[in-house]
Amino acid sequence: MRTVVVTGPPRADARQVDALARHGVATVHEAMGRTGYLGPRLRPVHLGHRVAGTAVTVLSWPGDNLMIHVAVEQCRPGDLLVVATTSPSTDGMFGELFATALQHRGVRGLVIDAGVRDVAELGAMGFPVWSAAVSAQGTVKATPGAVNVPVTIGGQVVRPGDAILADDDGVLCVPRTGLAAAVEAAGARAAKEEATRAAFRAGELGLDRYGLRERLPGMGIEYVPYDERDEP
Amino acid sequence: MRTVVVTGPPRADARQVDALARHGVATVHEAMGRTGYLGPRLRPVHLGHRVAGTAVTVLSWPGDNLMIHVAVEQCRPGDLLVVATTSPSTDGMFGELFATALQHRGVRGLVIDAGVRDVAELGAMGFPVWSAAVSAQGTVKATPGAVNVPVTIGGQVVRPGDAILADDDGVLCVPRTGLAAAVEAAGARAAKEEATRAAFRAGELGLDRYGLRERLPGMGIEYVPYDERDEP
Amino acid sequence: MRTVVVTGPPRADARQVDALARHGVATVHEAMGRTGYLGPRLRPVHLGHRVAGTAVTVLSWPGDNLMIHVAVEQCRPGDLLVVATTSPSTDGMFGELFATALQHRGVRGLVIDAGVRDVAELGAMGFPVWSAAVSAQGTVKATPGAVNVPVTIGGQVVRPGDAILADDDGVLCVPRTGLAAAVEAAGARAAKEEATRAAFRAGELGLDRYGLRERLPGMGIEYVPYDERDEP
Amino acid sequence: MRTVVVTGPPRADARQVDALARHGVATVHEAMGRTGYLGPRLRPVHLGHRVAGTAVTVLSWPGDNLMIHVAVEQCRPGDLLVVATTSPSTDGMFGELFATALQHRGVRGLVIDAGVRDVAELGAMGFPVWSAAVSAQGTVKATPGAVNVPVTIGGQVVRPGDAILADDDGVLCVPRTGLAAAVEAAGARAAKEEATRAAFRAGELGLDRYGLRERLPGMGIEYVPYDERDEP
Amino acid sequence: MRTVVVTGPPRADARQVDALARHGVATVHEAMGRTGYLGPRLRPVHLGHRVAGTAVTVLSWPGDNLMIHVAVEQCRPGDLLVVATTSPSTDGMFGELFATALQHRGVRGLVIDAGVRDVAELGAMGFPVWSAAVSAQGTVKATPGAVNVPVTIGGQVVRPGDAILADDDGVLCVPRTGLAAAVEAAGARAAKEEATRAAFRAGELGLDRYGLRERLPGMGIEYVPYDERDEP
Amino acid sequence: MRTVVVTGPPRADARQVDALARHGVATVHEAMGRTGYLGPRLRPVHLGHRVAGTAVTVLSWPGDNLMIHVAVEQCRPGDLLVVATTSPSTDGMFGELFATALQHRGVRGLVIDAGVRDVAELGAMGFPVWSAAVSAQGTVKATPGAVNVPVTIGGQVVRPGDAILADDDGVLCVPRTGLAAAVEAAGARAAKEEATRAAFRAGELGLDRYGLRERLPGMGIEYVPYDERDEP
Repeated sequence: MRTVVVTGPPRADARQVDALARHGVATVHEAMGRTGYLGPRLRPVHLGHRVAGTAVTVLSWPGDNLMIHVAVEQCRPGDLLVVATTSPSTDGMFGELFATALQHRGVRGLVIDAGVRDVAELGAMGFPVWSAAVSAQGTVKATPGAVNVPVTIGGQVVRPGDAILADDDGVLCVPRTGLAAAVEAAGARAAKEEATRAAFRAGELGLDRYGLRERLPGMGIEYVPYDERDEP
Repeated sequence: MRTVVVTGPPRADARQVDALARHGVATVHEAMGRTGYLGPRLRPVHLGHRVAGTAVTVLSWPGDNLMIHVAVEQCRPGDLLVVATTSPSTDGMFGELFATALQHRGVRGLVIDAGVRDVAELGAMGFPVWSAAVSAQGTVKATPGAVNVPVTIGGQVVRPGDAILADDDGVLCVPRTGLAAAVEAAGARAAKEEATRAAFRAGELGLDRYGLRERLPGMGIEYVPYDERDEP
Repeated sequence: MRTVVVTGPPRADARQVDALARHGVATVHEAMGRTGYLGPRLRPVHLGHRVAGTAVTVLSWPGDNLMIHVAVEQCRPGDLLVVATTSPSTDGMFGELFATALQHRGVRGLVIDAGVRDVAELGAMGFPVWSAAVSAQGTVKATPGAVNVPVTIGGQVVRPGDAILADDDGVLCVPRTGLAAAVEAAGARAAKEEATRAAFRAGELGLDRYGLRERLPGMGIEYVPYDERDEP
Repeated sequence: MRTVVVTGPPRADARQVDALARHGVATVHEAMGRTGYLGPRLRPVHLGHRVAGTAVTVLSWPGDNLMIHVAVEQCRPGDLLVVATTSPSTDGMFGELFATALQHRGVRGLVIDAGVRDVAELGAMGFPVWSAAVSAQGTVKATPGAVNVPVTIGGQVVRPGDAILADDDGVLCVPRTGLAAAVEAAGARAAKEEATRAAFRAGELGLDRYGLRERLPGMGIEYVPYDERDEP
Repeated sequence: MRTVVVTGPPRADARQVDALARHGVATVHEAMGRTGYLGPRLRPVHLGHRVAGTAVTVLSWPGDNLMIHVAVEQCRPGDLLVVATTSPSTDGMFGELFATALQHRGVRGLVIDAGVRDVAELGAMGFPVWSAAVSAQGTVKATPGAVNVPVTIGGQVVRPGDAILADDDGVLCVPRTGLAAAVEAAGARAAKEEATRAAFRAGELGLDRYGLRERLPGMGIEYVPYDERDEP
Repeated sequence: MRTVVVTGPPRADARQVDALARHGVATVHEAMGRTGYLGPRLRPVHLGHRVAGTAVTVLSWPGDNLMIHVAVEQCRPGDLLVVATTSPSTDGMFGELFATALQHRGVRGLVIDAGVRDVAELGAMGFPVWSAAVSAQGTVKATPGAVNVPVTIGGQVVRPGDAILADDDGVLCVPRTGLAAAVEAAGARAAKEEATRAAFRAGELGLDRYGLRERLPGMGIEYVPYDERDEP
């Protein structure tokens, strides 16, 4: 592992990041062609948050939170800290003292592919966290890692400066250079969803709205009355 | 897989289904001789719901929600949609647009052995969901499956028309033809539990109430004071 | 397995147990040199509780809750029941009837390395539970086990009479003979955390406060501007 | 659970069962329309076996092998024992003494959705076993279950008298009444596979053989030279 | 964690340790009243070994193998190294260089609740290893731990000087002070198993040999001919 | 997902790839600064292979192997196919017919973060496979994906043209542009390991060879005779 702290990476456009937060993770994920989702392992510690921010990334050794300390200094208002480990770990690498420091710097939340602790305090502070685990297990500050290098979570690469969107459905990474397009596509998608929602409320079926019905016979799907079914 | 949509299956008796909802999943499970439980993998997306309905079943390909669209049309008021996949998947096959369509049709909830998304919206709508995962990962509409065939979740077979009961403890399947008996047995069980509850509140012990105390010596259980214990 | 019920074990000092509850699990775990944590598998059934009590321990056969019935009689006010199984199990061995009996005896909560049920009822009763699973699956009363013998959960040995502290971060075991020292160390740790919290709120960095900054070069950590980074 | 031992179930046709063993699990699974597979959790304890037999089914309590003892008596030459548990368990419910008894009765193997032990001895005996786990953990004989009732493993229902095929890829259930059709379809499938194998050895591509190439553009798949790719 | 290296712990009686290796893990586990098994997570890296030795124990930080280096020096001929970590880890903490050093000292094998690497080389050396994972992921030597303190694996406490028996079924811990009794009980158990084996080969049933048949009706087990069964 | 087939990516230097195969995965991983390992989830289907090749990458929809068919055509002698899916899947996407086609084209093996089948046949063919699962479950050819785009497995990005090394310890990705350096570093590392091996065979300790002994006191590690230990 290259033990490096990359300083001053470009940030995602702040206005676009804020615009991103007008949509949910699932909507933007669809608008981006079903890409960018960091997977179901990352869950919100408390339900009810939706935040967007710019990624400051950390790559840590398992059981060691030294590099999170290093990363705090690299954070600016509007950032969101994204922490990965070099091998799987559930240890509680992050707690309310870190959250206090990050809140002071205007950081909007934490995404961590490992464990966190001080769940009650994090909830009371209103500091949103998405993590792979909750664990009180403490960590050391002994082994170097990296800050602001590309990290991988749930099969997605997160680069410093990428936009991160997180809500009750999990976490999405929007590449910095594709952010404006993603926000625009998300707006279009949201409008389309709103129209579909209205149609569904009026009783239209997805079968018809999406033109699926006529494709069913070609797929070999047959309709059979219950009494004529051939059940094993 | 037979790619079939079975139409017009018999429904569980509506009055009995509603009567079922007077009891919790654990109580009815016990009343049925400890059968019917769909296992701990299925969890409520939001706590605090208890619903009963009649199963409309779906068997889908992983990563594909085509058959849920097909199934919506087969749903009637009082139904509850039950979705299984042909192999394990965590993808978010279901979200608030589906929930909107199902609420319009009077469907009481969703049970899915895969993932869902739009968690915040589902909560706001009050549409109860039990799932194996939460995931924003989108799905396609490309591969056929089946509707209203028997499906298996957590080692239990669910047939179209079976009654489903779900609460914070998970999901229970009550076979349609055994529903009346189950409701009656659940009532008896609940009365017995109420008596036990009162006894426990008054200080009686399960050891005595269930006649266990006299069986302990025959099982080889000895009482030993702490200071005389023989600890390795 | 020795099928024994050990009676009258020494209890942890009641005042110290209550003092323990003034701190969170993570704080005491750190104060004890990062020991005692029962691991991330045990989660609170409902968030928002913090309790401390004296362990009454149970070792049960999987799928069998006979020994919990035996253990209830051994519980006194201020105790906390700790249940392990001889092999992994998710079955719902414990529910609201047990909780009713335990509340009557002044027991403060349950820690169980298996499943529980009656989640809604436990929440309504305000009886705090930490478990490895939620499951409606019922159990039998057929196979003997032990009460008040040492049990192991998450790599930690819990002995009868040890103090247990549990909150939203999970469960901690404080050995009975080390309780006073742990409470004192936790107080000192909490004071230190409060000072750190104030410093972080004032903008100090962990890098400086913990003296990490000067150690970074010796660890081979370099700071590199973004434009000069050498990215693969 | 109904605590019943069903005696004298119909057996799958012996000649067809033997014919089934001429094909691998994957081939027959495909020939049956991609159904019947008991899932990747069941693995052979030793590689290198392929057996077919008629299912004698067992439903056991976790941590309890009483019903396997009951089931041995129900086995005949050509049978294959299939064991499920009422909740997940890894315990070693089966070992070489059972295998000795089953070999004496002409039983062809064991399929168990739980653990086995005596791995070295089973290998030396040449008794083939597919299991979800290997564990030395012993079990009791205390709680009743059922023999020759339908059981469910990996989402598939296995009924007494169904044909079972197992090899290094896992376990397949062929419903008794569909056995002849499955054997015939497997033969056709094997012939088709042999032709494909020869074609692939001669350099033909699946893209052409399966008519996929012409469908790619309609799916939106583009071919782009490396130097013209648009990589994020 | 106390960072201590305990020197010169008592060793299990060498002759008894060797006697232990005459039996399999499952047999001794049964002879000890179904205790001592380190659980199904620990699997042999290569099948076909059975070894017994005296435990030298290590408690390591995750991702760090410093303490294994410390422990090597504490090993004597006839020992077997037992490594646990303070939190779950799959990293490859041990490989063929360690095995070379241990073989030089007459150490009989390794048991590790984490990962190992150099699988091919370990096989070629004939050095037996039981581990929770195989992983090439390397580790550091930065954080202290302990040698020859009690460690816990799979719910069992292993103390320095305990006897360890391992084979294809996994790993068993026999407390040093109970070793002679365990060897004797294992011999008796083996004789009993041999008699049972002979009886089973002669066609006797477990139902009769263990006196189960007469207990079945009292358990509510009924025998029902297939055609009279009452199937849902 | 961009549905693209990138043609003609640069290949890793063939001689360097072959040189890579002179070392094991763990050695090269260490030589690269403990990077590049695809994690413990990928295991060899059969032990005993060590191969190196150039990555042709595939990104497939779960339950769908269309893109593997597309990728075969892009393979040249010396390549190694690397398959990822857009969400977790255990389905058997690959079997002996694919292996036949790949062998014809001189492809050296398969790495797949999903399931494979035809295990017996793959072993007989001597076609080496590393996979996350074995499963007979068949797949469809319905949903597009991508070939020769960067994919992520186990937290590592694999780009087309990267070198892949795989053995009994798992799979390593060596970036194409870093291959020569990695081969050289691996040679140096191997020489160092050989010297260490000789030293260990002669009885030297890692404590001394790596200069650890003098660092122990500074880490707070104390040596305590067994009789003076302070055990809880």
